Amino acid sequence: MTASLSDDLKSIIDDTPVFATVATVQPDGSPQLSITWITRDGDDLLFSTQVGFQKERNLRRDPRVTVMINPADAPYTYAEVRGSVELSSEGAQVLLDQLSRKYTGKDYAEFRPSAKKNAERVVVRVTPRKVVGSL
Amino acid sequence: MTASLSDDLKSIIDDTPVFATVATVQPDGSPQLSITWITRDGDDLLFSTQVGFQKERNLRRDPRVTVMINPADAPYTYAEVRGSVELSSEGAQVLLDQLSRKYTGKDYAEFRPSAKKNAERVVVRVTPRKVVGSL
Repeated sequence: MTASLSDDLKSIIDDTPVFATVATVQPDGSPQLSITWITRDGDDLLFSTQVGFQKERNLRRDPRVTVMINPADAPYTYAEVRGSVELSSEGAQVLLDQLSRKYTGKDYAEFRPSAKKNAERVVVRVTPRKVVGSL
Repeated sequence: MTASLSDDLKSIIDDTPVFATVATVQPDGSPQLSITWITRDGDDLLFSTQVGFQKERNLRRDPRVTVMINPADAPYTYAEVRGSVELSSEGAQVLLDQLSRKYTGKDYAEFRPSAKKNAERVVVRVTPRKVVGSL
């Protein structure tokens, strides 16, 4: 069973630099949260992370993820997207630069020159199972 | 072991209508997210919910919670507060009106006249175990 994103939610993701809050499951079962840049491919959400980060290690162990999208200029509207992820290193640098240009207007290396050059980036593809909320 | 909130984080909670994202654990172990008004009492975070809401049922079953605070006007700063909750009906209406005035300038019944009059509200007190992030 997969779920669809509404047209409003797609527009917010496509047309605005909305940040997403991503929840993963810690080894002890408690929730872990982080803020991330986000885009989409059809109904799948896409974000970038790095091999070894807590979020990445959690998602390799338990692929369940919940993503909250809550526009800063409309704080009483939101979408809570529950789904599961696939991780892939293919296209990871392309996605990172695409996200960086969306949010900062610059390629990632220019936005964050201090970032490790050899860091192994990962594409996280979220296939929604359920979308809750007003978006 | 409890953790403290930084002075910057306290100021953001006290002086700005920052929204918080709250993560609880679903019965199946996956994360559940919601957006909420927030305040604090010392180092404890306080928010309001309603008996029977998913968040409330989750927290009664598993008191572990993670709260993300990420100011809309400073999206690269955040605090991820991990802790556990105590639920209480005492002072629930007072807290709800206090939060409503902070975020809307009105008592809750005036802000949301459609809200059920007899809904049983709950104070959720989060005692931080760990604070991660830049705030």
